[in-house]
This record gives sequence, C-alpha cells and structure tokens, in this order.
Amino acid sequence: MQNRIPDPAAPSSYVRPEIAALEGYVPGEQPRDPRVVKLNTNENAYPPSARVRSAIVEACDRLQLYPDPSARAVRERVAELYGVDADGVVVGNGSDEILSLILRAVVDPGDAVAYGSPTYSLYDTLVALQAARSVRVPYGDDYAIPRELFSIPARLIFVCNPNAPSGTAVTRAELDALAIARRDVLLVVDEAYVDFADACATTMGIEHPNVVVLRTLSKSYSLAGLRVGFAITTPALATELNKVKDSYNVSRLAQAGALAALEDQDAMLAHVARVRATRARLGERLCALGYVVAPSQTNFVLARRPGVSLLPTKESLQRRGILVRWFAELPDALRITVGTDAEIDRLLEEIARP
Amino acid sequence: MQNRIPDPAAPSSYVRPEIAALEGYVPGEQPRDPRVVKLNTNENAYPPSARVRSAIVEACDRLQLYPDPSARAVRERVAELYGVDADGVVVGNGSDEILSLILRAVVDPGDAVAYGSPTYSLYDTLVALQAARSVRVPYGDDYAIPRELFSIPARLIFVCNPNAPSGTAVTRAELDALAIARRDVLLVVDEAYVDFADACATTMGIEHPNVVVLRTLSKSYSLAGLRVGFAITTPALATELNKVKDSYNVSRLAQAGALAALEDQDAMLAHVARVRATRARLGERLCALGYVVAPSQTNFVLARRPGVSLLPTKESLQRRGILVRWFAELPDALRITVGTDAEIDRLLEEIARP
Repeated sequence: MQNRIPDPAAPSSYVRPEIAALEGYVPGEQPRDPRVVKLNTNENAYPPSARVRSAIVEACDRLQLYPDPSARAVRERVAELYGVDADGVVVGNGSDEILSLILRAVVDPGDAVAYGSPTYSLYDTLVALQAARSVRVPYGDDYAIPRELFSIPARLIFVCNPNAPSGTAVTRAELDALAIARRDVLLVVDEAYVDFADACATTMGIEHPNVVVLRTLSKSYSLAGLRVGFAITTPALATELNKVKDSYNVSRLAQAGALAALEDQDAMLAHVARVRATRARLGERLCALGYVVAPSQTNFVLARRPGVSLLPTKESLQRRGILVRWFAELPDALRITVGTDAEIDRLLEEIARP
Repeated sequence: MQNRIPDPAAPSSYVRPEIAALEGYVPGEQPRDPRVVKLNTNENAYPPSARVRSAIVEACDRLQLYPDPSARAVRERVAELYGVDADGVVVGNGSDEILSLILRAVVDPGDAVAYGSPTYSLYDTLVALQAARSVRVPYGDDYAIPRELFSIPARLIFVCNPNAPSGTAVTRAELDALAIARRDVLLVVDEAYVDFADACATTMGIEHPNVVVLRTLSKSYSLAGLRVGFAITTPALATELNKVKDSYNVSRLAQAGALAALEDQDAMLAHVARVRATRARLGERLCALGYVVAPSQTNFVLARRPGVSLLPTKESLQRRGILVRWFAELPDALRITVGTDAEIDRLLEEIARP
C-alpha cells in the first residue's frame, strides 16, 4: 500500500493520485433543445428498426428480474450473423464498456498502450485511468497503419478502423499483417463505424489468437441511446474478459432491443445507404467550398483548412443552432456528422456564409 | 512494464496474471423456465410502478441519440428525495457498476479493502480485479460492525447495510462512529436493501467527507432488469468518481424508467409493505420448522440449521422447481428471497417435507 494519507479537507486525497490528476473524458454536447441540428457526436440520422420498440415494450413485462448475465440470445444472433462461435462474443453496455474491460483485463500500471494519432480520444482517458502509458504514433497523410506499431514495445494496440476523427480506413491485409507481426500484443480493432465502410474485418477476431474486434449498435443500428456493443474474439479471450465485466452489465431492455435490431438487417442497411449517399454529397460540396476532406468510410467527415483554426467556424455554426465537433489537437479541422439531407443542406448553407 | 511475454498458444497470457488466476463472480441462476419459483437472487416479488413502462415507451422515440451523460433528471429527483445536492449524486448501470468505479478510483494494487464477513460476495471479486487485498473481518453473532474495522489498516471499507446474506442491519450511530473514527479511509455504505429496513442512513453521504452511500433501484423499485443504481456523496467525491465512469453508462431507457420509478414512491412503498409482511410470516414459519433465522431488514431471510449442511435441502428444492441460494462459505444456511405469498406458501410446503 502506498503511503498516502487521505485528508478530509482535500477530498481528492481519497482517490488514487492518477485519478485526482485526471481531467476526465469530455463527451460532445447533448443539447436539450430538439431544434438544434446535432452533427457533433456521430449519431445516426435515422431511427432504429421499428421492431426495436416492440421488443423493448415486451421486455418491460419482467423488469423486476435480473437480465441474462451472458446475454445469450444476443450472442447467438451475433454468432450467426458473422459465422463465429457464440462463446467468443462478449456483449457490453456500449463498446466503450468493452474498451474499459479490455484495459482492465490486460494492462498493469506503467504498461504501454499504442495507437495511431489522432484517433478516438477515449483511449487516452482509459489508459490514464489504468495508470498505463499512452504511446501515440502520428498517422501519415495516407492514414495507413503507422509503421512504428509493427515493432514498438506495448502490451496492447488499438486500431480504430475506420478511424475517428479522420473517417479513413485501412485494409484487411494491413490489419492481418499487424496481427501476425504482433503476436506478443493484444490487438483491438475497433469497428464502431465499419457498417458505413466498404469492407469489414470482423472475423479477424476468431482468426488470430491475439485479436479482439469491437462493434457497436450505436452508429449503424441507430441505437446510441440504448448502449449495446459487442466484442468478437476467441472463446478463450472472451472467458478472460467476462471475468472483468459486471454480471448484469446489459439490461433486459438493451438485450431485447439489440436482438430485434440485429434481426432487422434490412433497416440498418437502408439507413446506412442513405447516410453514404448524403456523405458523398457533403464531401463534394465541402471540397467545392475549399475544404480538404479525407475519404470517409464512416457517418462523418473530417473537413480541414490546413493551417487555419476552425474554432471560429465551429462557434459561429453553434450560434446558428448547428453543432459540429472541433478538437484542440486538430484546430484546422471540423468533424461533421452526416445528418439527414435537410440537416446537411442547412449546414452547407450556413458554413458557406462568411 | 512487467516482463511477461504473451504466448499465442496460451490465450490467458495476454491478460494480467491476476485476471488469469481469477474464477470470476458467479451470479445466482437465471432460469429460462418461467414456472420456476425464483427465490435465489433477491428480486422484488412485485412489478415496478406502471409509470415505468410509459416512460420507457416514450424514451424509445429518440434512441438514435446518446443519453445524457450526467443523468441530470435522475440526479435532480434523487437530490429532491433525500435533500442532498444533485452534484453529489452519481448514477450507475446498477450499483454494481458504482462499486466497480469506486474500487478503480480509490484502490491501487496491493491496497487493503476491509469489510465484515460474510457479506456481498461481489466485493471479493472487485478487489481481486484491482489486484488489491481483501481483509475480511468475521461478523459476530450480533452482526454489529466488527470492532477491527475501527482501526485496521485499509484504503477502503465496505459496510453492506442491511447486510447480505445475513439480512441484519446496524444502526446509524454505529455507522457515524465508524465514519468519524476512519477519516483516513473512504467508507462505502451499501444500502441496496435499505428500503426494506426500519431506517436508512442515506444522508450520511453528505454529512461526512469520507462516505459514499450506494442505493439501487433493483430491489425496492422492482427494477433489477433495468440496471440503475446511484451514489450519494459530496460533490467533490462525485467529481472524482465521474472521471472513472463511462460517459454514457446509463441508457436513455434506464434514465427514463428510473425517473418514473422514483416519482412513484407510493408504488415502491406498497410493494415494500407487502414484502415486509410476508417476510415476518416466512421468518416465523421457518423458526417453527426449527431454523435459526436472523432478524431480517431486507427482502430475504437467512435460515440456518447450525452445523448441518443445507446443500441437500437446496438441491431437493431445486428438483421441485424452487431456487434458493446456498453458499459454500455458509454451508448450514439458505438465503431465501421473500417472494409473493403464494411462492412462499409453496416454499414452506416443500421445505417442510422430509
């Protein structure tokens, strides 16, 4: 036990020094005013399958009972969809929870966790919580997997693919090469946005002994408010992750809703197709307005004006009721969620104004 | 970084040695057959307030959007109910999640976490996950707070009150004395079952600089399947706990359902009154059958036959479609949830058989 003596007058002295020093992850704003055009947190522009509501209403009948701790029905449906073993599927309270489970299962204080940069900023927070070390390797202009990740000392590597906030994707061949080169490391392929991409690498989770693939229902299935994500990996690694997870981490409503959503692939695919069409139009229009837009494989685009801070643009849009995301580490960029056509028309109109 | 080299042929080598060595928490069985009389996981015998369903159905309208990361409406309702500051309320995916947050925020590897024994067995699991040390101090026959807890070296102390699996409660005066004696330690008072007790100590969370009180909606509010619990503490400690929690840990449905349940105190109190009446009858009948029953302040009773293993009784009940909980560490006891009157009649009939 470290020799720290808590002082009632300094409440943060009751917590670990790493926690006291932490700023905490700052999520995008969640405005209460429904008139706001919300293009800041990459939610789906369209509602989930209508089956989700019916399933949730039915699940209200037995809310006094605990949920299935193993989320068996959801795991079996995932297994069927991807042709994997249900024992290698772990269901979480969003894929954010599974990221946290992985950190806690794998990383000791001081261990290195490596990933390209910029990427999903929650990785930094989770690494800090575990008193581990973030090793951020800059992406090149092509957003290929940085070469350093093939050799850098680390306990854990994250590849967000497609990547946020760039929207770019690497190939399955690159990911396989990394998994094979790094048998000494657990590799997490975070496919939160992959249903919006041309190809996925989900079955990597069962084809390598050292890979966990993460998926979420928040984006393509329009269920950010329900909190369901899942991991696909080997049954052996799933067993280890399950030791860390709370028994009842996924509610009855979340399990029922997730199952219904997974069973209605048509609804998901139709919404994805609309988002992809709007994304193409948004990208073209932003380019025409002089922005540099990386080719997006997600439901957002990263629009840059190299060397020019876009904070004033973000703030000006906000005053006019349009939220987009701006990051201090990427001051010359805006991350814009692909909303409905009407929302994107509104954004394009406002962003073109002086 | 420790010098462990993962071996693809041994998947558990990718995780921390403490995790690989862990058995994992074993929750009570969740049978799929609805005819089973389920008296093993302390769920409420009655359904939640009817308002919960309406609120959940309404919340289905915006499931594509993330939930409020701070669960503000729930926190404000809790603050009003208990006369505390909403900034000192933390809402979790069940109080189990908040237990995990506290461990992760407070405890470093090797730190001691102290609590009476027997108590909620999840504490052992969570301490092991953090590579900390459980210091279990046996309860005496009166189930008062063990004296050792007033002085034993520790970083964190748990008092489950009322306690599981004994069902017994300590007084507010005892808890205050412990909180004052242990200003060097964070004290967690886990009030999961307190609505079934004669008195609560919930406001302790704001009256001491070193106390977090936990509550859950799983038991008294009949919402085990929804996954909502909350902590009441000082705003300063809440700030630290919030750094560790996932931003979107409580879904839109869980927030909506919790708010509706908290707004219908009458429904909760009516169900609690029924459970308490049935509990009295169950206790008397078990005593008449020769069991020793501790005075219960919860929605379960602990029935003992000192020195006699009750595993055969548990198994015999199970064969006849009645689940109760038996613990290897308490072989001469059964923990029996207070079900409906009909369920308890059935249990009493079967348990009286040779």
